[in-house]
Order: sequence, then C-alpha cells, then structure tokens
Amino acid sequence: MATPKEVKVSLDAQADKVRSLKAASAPKEDIDREVAVLIDLKKKMAALNVGSGGSSSSREPVKFTLKTPKGTRDWDPLSMALRNHIFKVIEAVFKSHGGVPIDTPVFELKEILSGKYGEDSKLIYDLQDQGGELCSLRYDLTVPFARFVAMNPSEYGNIKRYHIAKVYRRDQPAMAKGRFREFYQCDFDISGTYDPLLPDAEVLSIVTKTLCALGIRNFTVKLNHRALLDGLFAVCGVPEDKIRSISSAVDKLDKSPWAEVKKEMLEKGLNEESADAIGTYVSRKGSKELLEQLLQDEKLMGNASAKKGLEDLKILFEYLDVLEVTPRISFDLSLARGLDYYTGIIYEAITEGSAPPLAEAASAAAAASKKTKAKGADDDDASATVGVGSIAGGGRYDGLVGMFSGADSSKSGAGQVPCVGVSIGIERVFSIMMARLAKVRAAAEKEQAASSQSDSAVRAKETECFILSMGKEGMVKERLVVAELLRKHGIAAEYAYKVKPKMPAQFNAAAKDGVPFVVILAPDEWNDAEGRKVRVKEQRGKGSEEGDGKGHLVPLEGLVDWLRERVEAGRLGSEEILRRVMGVEE
Amino acid sequence: MATPKEVKVSLDAQADKVRSLKAASAPKEDIDREVAVLIDLKKKMAALNVGSGGSSSSREPVKFTLKTPKGTRDWDPLSMALRNHIFKVIEAVFKSHGGVPIDTPVFELKEILSGKYGEDSKLIYDLQDQGGELCSLRYDLTVPFARFVAMNPSEYGNIKRYHIAKVYRRDQPAMAKGRFREFYQCDFDISGTYDPLLPDAEVLSIVTKTLCALGIRNFTVKLNHRALLDGLFAVCGVPEDKIRSISSAVDKLDKSPWAEVKKEMLEKGLNEESADAIGTYVSRKGSKELLEQLLQDEKLMGNASAKKGLEDLKILFEYLDVLEVTPRISFDLSLARGLDYYTGIIYEAITEGSAPPLAEAASAAAAASKKTKAKGADDDDASATVGVGSIAGGGRYDGLVGMFSGADSSKSGAGQVPCVGVSIGIERVFSIMMARLAKVRAAAEKEQAASSQSDSAVRAKETECFILSMGKEGMVKERLVVAELLRKHGIAAEYAYKVKPKMPAQFNAAAKDGVPFVVILAPDEWNDAEGRKVRVKEQRGKGSEEGDGKGHLVPLEGLVDWLRERVEAGRLGSEEILRRVMGVEE
Repeated sequence: MATPKEVKVSLDAQADKVRSLKAASAPKEDIDREVAVLIDLKKKMAALNVGSGGSSSSREPVKFTLKTPKGTRDWDPLSMALRNHIFKVIEAVFKSHGGVPIDTPVFELKEILSGKYGEDSKLIYDLQDQGGELCSLRYDLTVPFARFVAMNPSEYGNIKRYHIAKVYRRDQPAMAKGRFREFYQCDFDISGTYDPLLPDAEVLSIVTKTLCALGIRNFTVKLNHRALLDGLFAVCGVPEDKIRSISSAVDKLDKSPWAEVKKEMLEKGLNEESADAIGTYVSRKGSKELLEQLLQDEKLMGNASAKKGLEDLKILFEYLDVLEVTPRISFDLSLARGLDYYTGIIYEAITEGSAPPLAEAASAAAAASKKTKAKGADDDDASATVGVGSIAGGGRYDGLVGMFSGADSSKSGAGQVPCVGVSIGIERVFSIMMARLAKVRAAAEKEQAASSQSDSAVRAKETECFILSMGKEGMVKERLVVAELLRKHGIAAEYAYKVKPKMPAQFNAAAKDGVPFVVILAPDEWNDAEGRKVRVKEQRGKGSEEGDGKGHLVPLEGLVDWLRERVEAGRLGSEEILRRVMGVEE
Repeated sequence: MATPKEVKVSLDAQADKVRSLKAASAPKEDIDREVAVLIDLKKKMAALNVGSGGSSSSREPVKFTLKTPKGTRDWDPLSMALRNHIFKVIEAVFKSHGGVPIDTPVFELKEILSGKYGEDSKLIYDLQDQGGELCSLRYDLTVPFARFVAMNPSEYGNIKRYHIAKVYRRDQPAMAKGRFREFYQCDFDISGTYDPLLPDAEVLSIVTKTLCALGIRNFTVKLNHRALLDGLFAVCGVPEDKIRSISSAVDKLDKSPWAEVKKEMLEKGLNEESADAIGTYVSRKGSKELLEQLLQDEKLMGNASAKKGLEDLKILFEYLDVLEVTPRISFDLSLARGLDYYTGIIYEAITEGSAPPLAEAASAAAAASKKTKAKGADDDDASATVGVGSIAGGGRYDGLVGMFSGADSSKSGAGQVPCVGVSIGIERVFSIMMARLAKVRAAAEKEQAASSQSDSAVRAKETECFILSMGKEGMVKERLVVAELLRKHGIAAEYAYKVKPKMPAQFNAAAKDGVPFVVILAPDEWNDAEGRKVRVKEQRGKGSEEGDGKGHLVPLEGLVDWLRERVEAGRLGSEEILRRVMGVEE
C-alpha cells in the first residue's frame, strides 16, 4: 500500500496536470477525465489520513496551512473602516431613490440556481450532501432576489430593493485586480410592471451617481439591448439556435480584435457573409446620433425584435437626457453580457485607466494596511496589469421571477414580474480606494513631519480617550471608574491592562492608536480636598509623547462636558480622511 | 428501470425513516447505514432527472420548491431596519471600549475547524469537493479569529476586535425560538498577555452593557472557571480521562434534574461516591459569598487547579464590583460549556421570561412584518415554548491561537496568544424585538385612529418626498427633474413610474409608504410668469389622503431649503420608533 507521502506526490503532480490542461483550454472530456483521477487520489489521501489514527481528540500537534481559502481574504480593521464608508456612500444613493434593504441566506437550494448562468454555472460552489437538501452558495444577488419576489409576489411584486452582500464563484482568482472567489456585490433592483423605460432610466442614473459618489471619475456606461441584438443577428442571417453562441463571441470584442472574433464565429459554423454583416454593426459605438442612424436602417427596422429594441432605446435616451446621464453612455452594439436571464436593455460600467497598475495597487494596499501581503493571498495572476475593467453591470430581466412561479416565460401575465437592476462590484472600487488611502496617508505623514502635528492620523480605532495613572499605586480601579464614566456618556475610552503600568508605556499605547486625549490620574489630584480632579491633555498638535504643557486640571464631575465639547470636533478626523480618499485626483 | 416518481416515493420514505431514527437518538451505526441508503436514492433521483433530458438550456417549465433552505430565512425590509438598529446599538458599546471590526471569509479550510468543537463538530457544513481545497462554512467567529491572530501575531497579538457576521450549524432548527442554521453572532474578543483578569472583567462589562442597551432586562450572567471545574472533578475522584465527559453531563443541569445527570455520570462509569461529591458542589449558586466559602474549602484549595480558579475569581469579582457588573452575576458551579477550547473563566448570559411565548412571538413577528409565516420557515419545533434561554456566552481560551501556530498548548511562550471574548446571539434578541415592534405598531395605530394623525407609522422606507403631477400631461420629465434636484441635496425622493398618472393613484402610492411630504407639479404653477413654482403638502397630521388644505406654494429654487428644514425633524420618526421598541416594558 502506498504511503501518504507517495500519494501526496502523485496528488500534486495530478493537480498540476489539471491546472495546465485548464490553462491551455483543453477539451472538456480531457479535463474531466484528469479531474476524476485527481478526485480519486484525494479520496485515497483522505482515507490514509483518517487511517493513520490522527483523531481530533488525541490533540496531536498538527501542522496547519495557515491561510484563508483560495480566492478569499480577511478584512483588517483599516480595510473595514474603508469598506464601511464605501457601503455608506452607496446606501445613501440607493436610499435617496426609495430603496429598501433585504437579505437572503448565503446558500440557496441547488435547483434555484441551476439553469440561470449559462456557461458560468460550472463556477457555482455546492455544499456537500450531508443528508437533507442539496444547496449551493449564491452566485449573485439577482437570482435570490427573483426567488424572494416569486415567494412573496403580492408584497414584493413592486419593490425597489437593495442588497449588499457576498457572493461566491469558483473562478480563477486575480486578487490584485479585485477578482476574488468571495466578493461583495451591491445590487439595486426594481420589480413591477410600469410605463416603459422609466425604472430602467432610474437604475442607470443610480449607477452613474453611485460611481461618481465613490470618486470614480473615468468611467463609461456601455449600453445595448438584447432584443436589438437578437434582431440584428437575425437580420444578418444567424440561425435561431446559434444566436446565444454567436452573442457570446461578440461579447469578447472588448478584449479581442475583430479578426479573432470572426474566426470564432466561423468555427461555430456561421457563414462568412453573415459574420461580415455582423461586423459592420458591432463595430459601431456612439450615443444618440448612432441610435438615430439605426432608426433609419430599413433592414433593422424591418425586424420586429430589433425595432422594439431601438424604440425602447429612443425612449430611454429621452429620460437619460433629463437625468443628465447621457454624457456617460456609450451605446455599444458589441455589448452582449453572458447571463441567460436578460431580456431588455443591458449595460456595463467600465473604468479606463482609473485603476493603478497592479504592482502599485498591491504594494499601496499593503502599505495602507501597514502589513505585507497576506499569507492567504495566493494570487494566480500576479503578472496581470489593471487596465480596462468592469465595475458594474446589469439589465432588464422580465422572465426570471416567472421561472420560479412556473409561469410561461414567453408570455406576460400571472406569475411574471418584470425586473430591472444593477450590480456594483465593490472589490475593484476597494482596490482603487486602498491605493488612494496610501497616498493620503503618505501626504498626511509628510505634513505631520513638517508641522509636528498628528491630526491627520488614519486610524481604524475610534477611541477618544486613554486613561493613565501616575505614581506607583497604578490606580487601576480608579482608571476603570473613569473609563466607565466616559463610556456611559458616549466617549470611547481605554486604559492599560496593567495593575501598575509605567507612564511612558501608557503614553505609547495612546500614541500608537492615535488616541486624541489622555486623562491622567495622580493620587494627590484625585484626592484633592476640594473634590476629585484629573488632568487632561490633548495629544493632537503635540510633537513629543508627553507634550510640553501640563495639560488642564479638570474636576471629575466636569470631565464629560469638557471632553465632549472637544471630542465632537476631533471625531471629524476620520470622516475627513475618508472624504479626502474619495476625492484623490489620479 | 424505476420511474422518477417511484424513486421519489422510496426517497421520501427513506428520508422519513432517517428522521425518526435521529429523533429517537438511535445508535450512530444504524443512522449512518440508513443515511447511506438515502444518499444512494438521491443520486439515483438526480441521475434520472438529468437523464430525462431536462437540460438547462431547453428551459422547460420546472416546478421549484419555492423556499429558502431549512433553518434559513430571508430578511424583509422592516426586519432589516430593526437588525441594522440592533447592530448599531451593539457596535456603539463595542467601539466605546476601543473595539475595531474585522471580517473573515464565510468558509475556512476544513482542517482549521477540525478538533475545535468537541461533539458538535458533526454540525459543521462542508463544501463539496469540486477540486482544490476542502472547505467548511464557519461554525463560529472565535476559531476564525484565532486563525487570523495566528497569521498576524505581531500585528494582532494585541487587539480588541469585534466581528458581526453569520455562522452556520447543521442543527435541528427551531426558528420561532431563534434557533437557525444560518444565524448571526456578534463577537468581541481581546487578544494579548496582560495583568490577570483585567480584560476578562472588561468583556463581562461589555456583555452586560450590550444586553442592557438592547433593552433586555431580565438576564443573568452565569459565571464559572474551567480550572476550578477541573480541580473540583479531580478532588471528587473523577479520573483524568473522564473529566470532559463528566463535565458535559454537568452542563445539562440547567435543563435536567440532578437525578438524571447523576444517572448519566454513573452510566459513563463514575462511581456513586464521586457522583455524590460532585452533586454537593455543582448544586451551589451564588455570588461573592459562595466564592468566600469555597476559598475556605480545604479540599478545593489543596488542588492546584481549583485554587488557581478560585483566586482568579477573587480578583475578577473585585473588578466586577468597580464596573458595577456583580449584581448581574450568578457564580454557578454547574456551568461547564461544551466547547473544547476554553481554559479560564467561562460565562453564559441567560434571559428568564423576557421572551414572549412562542405562538405569540411568531404571530407578532408575522404581524410586525405584515406578512404571514414565510413559506420557507419549516419549523420543526413549533410546539416548544420560549422559556429560559442562552443569549450570549464566552470565556477565556489561551491555547487556541497556539494550536494554529503549532505551539505546545501546555506551555506558554512563542506562538501562544491568550484570548478572552464573548459571542452575543442576535437571533433571540431579534425575536424579542420583533414582538415588541408589533406592540409599538399596534399602539401607534390605535393612537392614529384616535387622533387621525399618521406621525408614528413604522416604515422601512426612508423616502421623504413623493413628486406628483396634476393634469393630463403627466409632466413626467418635470417630475424627474424635481426628484433629482432633491436627491442631489440629500432628500430621498420618488415618483410614479407612469407617464400620465392619475392623482389618487399617486397620493395612494405616497400614503402606502408613509412618505411624509408630497410635491405637486401643476402646469400653470410650473409655468408661472414669476418663475417655476410647486405646491408642497405635509402628509403627517392629515387624516384624509388629499388633505384639507391646499398646501404651500413654494418657488422651485426655494424648495430644497423649505423641505430640509422640515424633513430633518421628520427623520426622527423611525429612530424614535426604534427607541420605543428598545424601551418596551414586558
């Protein structure tokens, strides 16, 4: 029988083989065959490990691979501060349009997700069958929303809901580019039957306003219409059963040159004439003037589907003009979007050049969070550069809710709830923000060095006051009492977890976290004949740790008021920093 | 070959069988055997479904079971408003102690979780092996925190972190009691080596303050010490290898009478004399006076471990006195807590009678969210009543981080990072709050009916202004312009998605969502020779939809200021409601 070590060697070799086949886009059968071998080896390995007597209760020292799973990461406190701020900005826009939040479970019944994502279904994470229902981690927030509406049609058949939550895709991660296996989506969707294009225009207004509010400047919203695209393909002679696959070839035009896309079409069995006809259309980008041209195109207007798409777009642009969104729009006939469920207008916001090159972003992010690259970050695509990238996407999906209600998706009526919405990808925004935070921090540190002020410290902690003791007794209980007094009045306070701490150590602890005020307890002042007194020192604006002055002697009973007045102003510090981050010019 | 229908019948029958075996606590071998049969049937079923030609692209109407997975649920907008408020209250306490947030992935490498949860490990959700690493959903937030600290010991070896996130347990759900398979934990932990019991006392202060801030009144914090318990068992003659299992028997004393617990001990091989000796100790509950008695107990003080525990508790109570926590504490020698990783003081907060009986809570929650019981809620324990319940728990775990660093858990030193913390269970708090919200709402409705005021509407939506149009033209573009103007100035605005809406329908839409202000556009006022004018009506304090007055005629350029002044006051509405919910007397 093979030893665990021997099996491990085979296992690693087999894993490499599978990886190279996948990287080389080998035929599916070949990959599947090798994956089957890999899974067998894993089972063998698992059996050997169990058989070797390593039960959990024996508590033998186990060497762990200390990392987060591939494509996932931890959020440290500073990242969390930035993330929370980003969410707040996004939620403010969503709420200003009457959006209300919902939440759904992180996993759904497997059958809910199947048949919704086309070729990408293979990226869905399944839960192991441990008895009971078969479940999968959510792949996006759109399908769970449609399931939610289908379950409660009378109540949520008309809703503007937003949902900010993690979704899961077993994709090849490229973490510095913001591509993770666990990542956030921020979705806003409108369900219900309304006059044409009014909700669609509102969603497009929301996307542009949200990106602007996040300080993303160089972005464009590509716009197209599924019905127009379907009609266009029909007009060009694409057979009905090839429309989806030709559509997915067209979708690659943002990354590949026309010659390659055409080659793919021919390989998929399209004739050259049709391919060239498509080429004359999908190379066209523009705005309202392009729409006007197409509205004059007799071939297109002769096709019912294309006509419907063009007429929708005409109404849409009128609303977009009023909402001042048009300047951001690129009407782009090559935009197709992969997901199965879109039925009307589709869009995708892309940033151009607003993201820093990868290496810079990664090191800046590391610098901003003051640590080296997380051990868990196994970036498989570290040589890639950040160029053009999708930052939000969405469209109209009128048949999805009906798929759950069992309604006939080709007809409107009972069980059908038309929807339109958008997903904003926060990870990419976050990478950009972390790079900016590093810039702001560097500038603040420079400023501090020049003026020996520490007002602009970027800190995750919101502690406003550190309680110190002077003298040998340590006054631990007194420190607890003062801290509790402040906390009860909404002032965040800390103290050293030491019974008899030394003065410099206490000052250092306060300085390390950028705590703006220290309250010093000294036995003689505490036991003053006139009543308890403490000494308060403002740390901001001081160069040296212990300051130059002696601080302010304040009666204990007046301490809360004294601090409150000053703390309120100080609190703006972190908010101000975050505002600056949002406003950094590239 | 069997038809899908026939297999389904066998499958259902087999599932029932497994359920009854589990319910009857049948021997593990029997259950495992029947589960294996069940899994085979499921595979058969899956194969038949695939074989029947139902590929996803054929889009045949599929009948879905429209529900969320067992033990999970959706959060509707009103529940979300309450949940967000609860989190805000909890975070305020955590931050007032210098806590900073972190986040970790929803799944961890499987090996990270194994050997940490004792008997409960069987409740861990595993992800399916789809190639790559084996992963499991997080079972709590403590183990991921320890893994996080172990990965970054120099940076986070001294941290007060909090983490509010969902965890996953394949437990038998009892949803009306607040027991879910997907549920929130709100954790606060302190890592680092400090003077004894200072952080422990702070964590206990945090628990009590948080529960008070949430308006939970009738709660007690049970307190014990693992070292004391171990010493006590040793003194009573429990052999070393039986301590864990005897400990878990003792832990059942909150639910079972002594006679039953004793029986379990004897069955586990303990002799009667030892069992009785344990009985004399674990029946004792009290406060500092009990501790004083035990400090005089020569047998206990003769055991090093028990002595250590008692001395720790002595120091702890001194700090708890200062922090005014002692009145909430019940020093309870029967508290053992199941998890493997605790090493020092342990505690558990329980509510007594503060939760409404189940039926009331469920119907109140349904009433509060204005819908009938969610279809997804398959509550297996619907007949249970809500009585005493654990609402928070935690303790000191000095060896867990070391388990990840590969440190020897029996020694302090390199790789060891002592920690103490608490988990607050939000689901139970949430059930209580939903019941209260129903009360507040009922009272508000009664008040409204009496005074024909609508000030106290409980609503999830924060829209402050609804833009209406008078007349036949519909003024759709004008409505968009005014809505955008308000949104740009931070006032949430909506309008009907209709080009030519009717007046009553627009008023109804505003009233349905409890929107406090309507802005009416009328062609003649809009085109006034002196400049654009709109009419604003305050909806609060009005009995009928269209009000009795004609509203205020306001120039468009002054609209933002006019509204801002009044909206600010109106915004307090929902906050005030939530404050009332927190303050409801049982």
